[in-house]
Amino acid sequence: MKAAIISVGNELVLGQITNTNAPYLARCLAQLNVEAPLQLTVPDDVSQVSGVTAQVFADNDLTFVCGGLGPTSDDITLVSVAKGLGRKLATDKKHWRWIQESFSQRQKKLLPENIRQAQYLAGGVALSNPTGLALGSWYEENGHVVVILPGPPAEFKAMVDQVVMPKLRVRLNSNKQIVSRTLHFLGRPESLLMAEIAKATQKMQAVTITSYVQPDEIQVRLKVEGQEEKQAAQLLDQAQAAILKKEGDYYFGSGDQLSLVQVVVSLLRQQHLRVTAAESLTGGLFQSTICSVPGASNVFDGGYVTYAATAKEQLLKIDPTIINQFGVVSAQTAAAMAERSRQQLGVEIGLGFTGVAGPDALEGHPAGEVWIGLAIAGQPVRTRQLHLDAHAGRQAVRLQTVQYGLQMIYQALVK
Amino acid sequence: MKAAIISVGNELVLGQITNTNAPYLARCLAQLNVEAPLQLTVPDDVSQVSGVTAQVFADNDLTFVCGGLGPTSDDITLVSVAKGLGRKLATDKKHWRWIQESFSQRQKKLLPENIRQAQYLAGGVALSNPTGLALGSWYEENGHVVVILPGPPAEFKAMVDQVVMPKLRVRLNSNKQIVSRTLHFLGRPESLLMAEIAKATQKMQAVTITSYVQPDEIQVRLKVEGQEEKQAAQLLDQAQAAILKKEGDYYFGSGDQLSLVQVVVSLLRQQHLRVTAAESLTGGLFQSTICSVPGASNVFDGGYVTYAATAKEQLLKIDPTIINQFGVVSAQTAAAMAERSRQQLGVEIGLGFTGVAGPDALEGHPAGEVWIGLAIAGQPVRTRQLHLDAHAGRQAVRLQTVQYGLQMIYQALVK
Repeated sequence: MKAAIISVGNELVLGQITNTNAPYLARCLAQLNVEAPLQLTVPDDVSQVSGVTAQVFADNDLTFVCGGLGPTSDDITLVSVAKGLGRKLATDKKHWRWIQESFSQRQKKLLPENIRQAQYLAGGVALSNPTGLALGSWYEENGHVVVILPGPPAEFKAMVDQVVMPKLRVRLNSNKQIVSRTLHFLGRPESLLMAEIAKATQKMQAVTITSYVQPDEIQVRLKVEGQEEKQAAQLLDQAQAAILKKEGDYYFGSGDQLSLVQVVVSLLRQQHLRVTAAESLTGGLFQSTICSVPGASNVFDGGYVTYAATAKEQLLKIDPTIINQFGVVSAQTAAAMAERSRQQLGVEIGLGFTGVAGPDALEGHPAGEVWIGLAIAGQPVRTRQLHLDAHAGRQAVRLQTVQYGLQMIYQALVK
Repeated sequence: MKAAIISVGNELVLGQITNTNAPYLARCLAQLNVEAPLQLTVPDDVSQVSGVTAQVFADNDLTFVCGGLGPTSDDITLVSVAKGLGRKLATDKKHWRWIQESFSQRQKKLLPENIRQAQYLAGGVALSNPTGLALGSWYEENGHVVVILPGPPAEFKAMVDQVVMPKLRVRLNSNKQIVSRTLHFLGRPESLLMAEIAKATQKMQAVTITSYVQPDEIQVRLKVEGQEEKQAAQLLDQAQAAILKKEGDYYFGSGDQLSLVQVVVSLLRQQHLRVTAAESLTGGLFQSTICSVPGASNVFDGGYVTYAATAKEQLLKIDPTIINQFGVVSAQTAAAMAERSRQQLGVEIGLGFTGVAGPDALEGHPAGEVWIGLAIAGQPVRTRQLHLDAHAGRQAVRLQTVQYGLQMIYQALVK
């Protein structure tokens, strides 16, 4: 099955916003084994959108047209697709009444143009929008499908997840069953990880394995096609077990939407533990990352940013001889930061982050050299040294440091 | 002049990476008044790249083909464009010798395929790559130009800035001179800001004004075309003065690459001031943002993350009656956080951030309600209340809060 994605919007064409909808949709389609080898971005222009859509619709099994479904005069997507395919517009009267009522309840002024948000491609079906006003459209002709979706990323994502993917699964299931699982890894070069995984699974021909490198992790997707669901799950279990036997040290969980900080916050919560930190090169990024998870207040009260050596001594009451003897970038300083922050806050877990974000070296240590300390009540303090690639820039060094800190907590809590 | 951008790469088509090159190029082209109303993404496939390029090249004045210039077998861009346009490849012998020498110096194994990185479209010119190995190409036929550029964003950006933009400026200057300036604003709805700017500049027909809404600021671009450089600068100065007379309260600087945190850090440095903070809802994001600027250690030693009320009392020694009487989300608590952090660190400026990131309300305060305190030695503490849009999500509330905190420092230091 061949798909194409047409993204509509002047602000995309001018580069004022970055297109995150098309890659999101492409990743979802890849889960169904559908490729989208042609992706276009075009401005809010009736003749261009209608012309491009007509041609792409004829050439592809599945055409997505994304963005431009609002009520204003530059939202021309629906009329343009209708023109391109020689169709008319239909109005979903129930949805239009709902829009009218919801405007009147919120005492917002309803414009006649708002009726556009209740319209869809005649001859097709309206797609409901769980988080916004404008309906989408699904229209089919001679086995070719066009799907029209709104542009705001939150609406787009909700419709893809809740409306489009289920419809596509039904459509594709008639041909082929695909079962997949995403495993998350951290702290291993992709080439090494994938080489070990290939060895571990070499006899499991039925499982297709692909990797996706993200800035802060490696996602490994296992996929089984054309099997009974139960047997597919068994095959995935076997592959996962074989992979984790070899590479389990670098694994932190499975699931499509999983992130390491969520895993760590929920582990802390389950085990009734609280965490704090003293941050030097990360400057508060670790604590800010913890606080990005709703409910962080169950595991985090507060902590320190100790950027200068003086702040390490003043706020954490670290023995100055430690810094004098071993230097700011050292296992000893990282350990003292972790332990002192833990003790001062009176919590079970403390982390210390010290190192060189770059671009310049510090006290003879190159940019990218980092020490992390992890203090857990009643256990010896752990430390870990990182040699990160400083060419990726100061911010990348700091982001990776935070991820390694989370990984150290994860490994300490699950073992 | 009409341009098109073709982005080549399987990882783009599969959504594994987000395309930041095309929007970057589109923004640069917009500075030259060149629009790119068609932008495509295609996989690493010779027949598709050659076919698409041939058609797009014929239809447009300026065609960019981006990505796929490496030495491996899936890097097929250059041969595909050559095939599409019926051209051969030429080798830049000097560059090939340089590649050979640099591999031998770094004791890296040179493969025969590396010669591809010294090749370009015969009949055109090679474009130098300031930060990478692979050459680009610039080829012209009957007034139509195709430009081939490498995919890694750092290389791409350096070539656009240092090689392509100067060549385009020369090419376009023969027709028309364009002088522009970008002004940065914060804390004003775009519609109001632009309405006031339109009024202030209504007699200045020669200056074109456009706005770009970014997540944390509004950029306003002033542009003058077809004038002598000196006169153009005068027109821009006049427009800027008229705009700042009306909207100067929301302005924080000019320049293409300017960000508010850079402005604030350099103001602090000039005035020999140091800053600290106590952060509740932002959880360290303010301090982490300060630390993202190289040289932050000149203005920042450290500070506090005080997420829980207990941490505010314990770490900052805030009088518990303040929190009991006025609540955590209050001017009084924000002011106390700012002043206590400043005093404890012994620095000139302290900020306190408290409020509701969401999604849930807190002590009767809705998500999006935020108080910021700004304490400056020898001055009364300032406080500011924000009502941010919590629908944009927890992280957006936190990012905006940090920007408002930076704006408060900026306004206090420049007035």
